[in-house]
Amino acid sequence: MKTHAIFYHAGCPVCVEAERQIAEALDPNRYEVELVHLGEHADRIAAAEAVGVKSVPALVINDAAFHINFGAPISALKS
Amino acid sequence: MKTHAIFYHAGCPVCVEAERQIAEALDPNRYEVELVHLGEHADRIAAAEAVGVKSVPALVINDAAFHINFGAPISALKS
Repeated sequence: MKTHAIFYHAGCPVCVEAERQIAEALDPNRYEVELVHLGEHADRIAAAEAVGVKSVPALVINDAAFHINFGAPISALKS
Repeated sequence: MKTHAIFYHAGCPVCVEAERQIAEALDPNRYEVELVHLGEHADRIAAAEAVGVKSVPALVINDAAFHINFGAPISALKS
């Protein structure tokens, strides 16, 4: 069974670059990567914060949050 | 031909976790990941800085630096 990974982003340039280079580089045989735009899906913010996501872009694998560079803080996406 | 990616670390807990979850998750059919411990190979620091690495752990793909969470600043590894 593939591991479910979630790439949280907000469409920012830093996010797009991280998605292009990191999220898409994961092994498709082992990982299924879900892309979630937190600016458009604010209902997903709570779950992201619950596993420690503080900014985007961030990749969550096995409930561990990996912040990749810095695009925007989660707080900026709550408005 | 595989893309050469470099995972820079310093053996710190944050680095180890990022290596285990991110560096090892890259598609082995497309990426060849080199692991470089900057604390033990200070001669590699200049090349890392040249592509924008400011802290470890960091993954460099196609000369783009992606800082993954925060373990230690490059400056701390120069002593």
